[in-house]
Amino acid sequence: MTATKGLEGIVATTSSISSIVDGVLTYRGYNIDDLAVNASFEEVAYLLWFGKLPSSSQLSELQAQLSRYAPIPDELISQMKLYPKDMNTMAALRSAVSALALFDNQADDMSREANEIKTMKLQAQLPTIVAAISRLRDGLEPVQPKEGASIAENFLYMMDGKAPSETAVKAMDQALVLHADHELNASTFAARVTVATLSDIYSGITSAVGALKGPLHGGANEAVAKMLDEIGSLDNVEPFIQQKLANRDKIMGFGHRVYKNGDPRAKHLQKMSRELGERNGDTKLYDMSVRIEELVTSQKGLKPNVDFYSASVYTQLGIKRELFTPIFAVSRVSGWTAHILEQYEDNRIIRPRAEYTGPTNQKYVSPELR
Amino acid sequence: MTATKGLEGIVATTSSISSIVDGVLTYRGYNIDDLAVNASFEEVAYLLWFGKLPSSSQLSELQAQLSRYAPIPDELISQMKLYPKDMNTMAALRSAVSALALFDNQADDMSREANEIKTMKLQAQLPTIVAAISRLRDGLEPVQPKEGASIAENFLYMMDGKAPSETAVKAMDQALVLHADHELNASTFAARVTVATLSDIYSGITSAVGALKGPLHGGANEAVAKMLDEIGSLDNVEPFIQQKLANRDKIMGFGHRVYKNGDPRAKHLQKMSRELGERNGDTKLYDMSVRIEELVTSQKGLKPNVDFYSASVYTQLGIKRELFTPIFAVSRVSGWTAHILEQYEDNRIIRPRAEYTGPTNQKYVSPELR
Repeated sequence: MTATKGLEGIVATTSSISSIVDGVLTYRGYNIDDLAVNASFEEVAYLLWFGKLPSSSQLSELQAQLSRYAPIPDELISQMKLYPKDMNTMAALRSAVSALALFDNQADDMSREANEIKTMKLQAQLPTIVAAISRLRDGLEPVQPKEGASIAENFLYMMDGKAPSETAVKAMDQALVLHADHELNASTFAARVTVATLSDIYSGITSAVGALKGPLHGGANEAVAKMLDEIGSLDNVEPFIQQKLANRDKIMGFGHRVYKNGDPRAKHLQKMSRELGERNGDTKLYDMSVRIEELVTSQKGLKPNVDFYSASVYTQLGIKRELFTPIFAVSRVSGWTAHILEQYEDNRIIRPRAEYTGPTNQKYVSPELR
Repeated sequence: MTATKGLEGIVATTSSISSIVDGVLTYRGYNIDDLAVNASFEEVAYLLWFGKLPSSSQLSELQAQLSRYAPIPDELISQMKLYPKDMNTMAALRSAVSALALFDNQADDMSREANEIKTMKLQAQLPTIVAAISRLRDGLEPVQPKEGASIAENFLYMMDGKAPSETAVKAMDQALVLHADHELNASTFAARVTVATLSDIYSGITSAVGALKGPLHGGANEAVAKMLDEIGSLDNVEPFIQQKLANRDKIMGFGHRVYKNGDPRAKHLQKMSRELGERNGDTKLYDMSVRIEELVTSQKGLKPNVDFYSASVYTQLGIKRELFTPIFAVSRVSGWTAHILEQYEDNRIIRPRAEYTGPTNQKYVSPELR
């Protein structure tokens, strides 16, 4: 049976983790709108991994475990100090995540129990790695994680070495919730294909980071931030966008293969973007974003996706553009690991076929005769 | 449209690289039987990448380029010296390949020309990395590649630090030819899924190494070697295999999802295994393998696959078991890169769907109430 290109619309697996039906995104049956407003990222990660929201004691236990696992091995920090200072952040993250396995003596233990522990380790250590990459790029020493802090707080703390504001923590936490899972997206599929050979969870996450690195997947909010920079002022939005539309250039942050009527995550990020602007007393980035949306939606019929307002959110949180995609990974590793655990539970190697379209019946002749 | 589990039988893409039709494996239209006997691995790699066999001058140029690219950056060797001595060889290879990108300033240049150069670099550097992993595990310094040597010769030389015999080089070269590509196998598919987000070629190869690491894919010849060790003598083959068959245990190295009537690569490896035994004046491993084949084929109807005789070939070449899967990667990187180049030529993100089977209509309640 021949599939559509890019496997578009092909159901490649069953899954009980997240669903997108009629433009509604749910995690384990909870509407993302409900979770975005009410749940912490730790609760959402637990939900994705174990299928239900944690009780108070389960949540405390999880927080304690994540805190305990957050420091990364000294040997990994030594390795990372050998990365060039101008490293690509996603290539660095991919390399560091892969190398984490070398220092985990449970890396190849395929029991469910060991894989759950590695799941929590990966969730705890990815933020530490990303913050270390950010600091090493700036020529600074990595900051050790703070015990007892949430993932959102700890991450912002390790980036800056200073306690973040409550608003910033809340915004980061909500952004993590909104990016945590998204059904069989390309990086999640890469992770499942990789571990379906019964390779280890680190292999799966390494593949996912590599896939997320691509501009068609994780790179879009960085591209939006670049565009906001290029536009520079509210007055310049209209001429800039009209020019782009006239040239039929792609405008980043709009449209989605799966959501035809708008991305349900966008509205939460839009609200957060406005709130951050109001707190900072400068809503320029938010105002520009709204104007871009008006123009693109009215003229092209395309609605903003998750990447569009996350660009102004992260920028207003003081995060550098080259960290946007790694932050996506800090959140999505919760979904990736949930999908890997699910894949292991009922595994079959994922090995489709290719239709051969090349020459046939060739015969070897020696190099002199070619 | 719902696909079969593991995408079995689903045509996920067209490809003009290799084909498996009616049990016949071809690379670019050349029967593997023709290439295994006549072509060098370098000729085959060129064929996979560029669609035709090289002329004499193209082949010399390729050999010169591979030779020039074979050394790995000192910074990578320093990083690898921080890997634990008992490292998993495939986790180490995955990490080192990913880190190679950090030292290649063309890593994110997506032009065809740059990707062809990276293709040759990866082919040249993987053997150097694998040999370095082997030596570091033994507490030895890595050996620099020898200029002007073929990949097969260089690899054996860098493992041992001594010039290999002509027979050994010939056997290694043929093994590389036989493993170079295999249509849309799981690691190749992982590479294509990864780069279809327009991620870089290093991301693709890193994913492929991670997928190959799984025992359902690259680990089978290592498992065969373990079984030969366990059996220990020709006399013990029959009781051992009869016991396995009685217990309905899987016997590694037999059967293949795609080949129902036998794997065309197996006969070449069988011949090589016999020849190596005869040269060494000890055909015990070969004789044991033949006896296993007789029993499994007559009683289960399963034929040996590429992994079965490669176990005795590599063992007779003096290669340690934990290097078997990395050697597979040294060869298959030729096919992986060819597939990545092909994916880039006519790309679409690979993003299938999942059918949601979990609970619906859940409502958030606070932790105290759960």
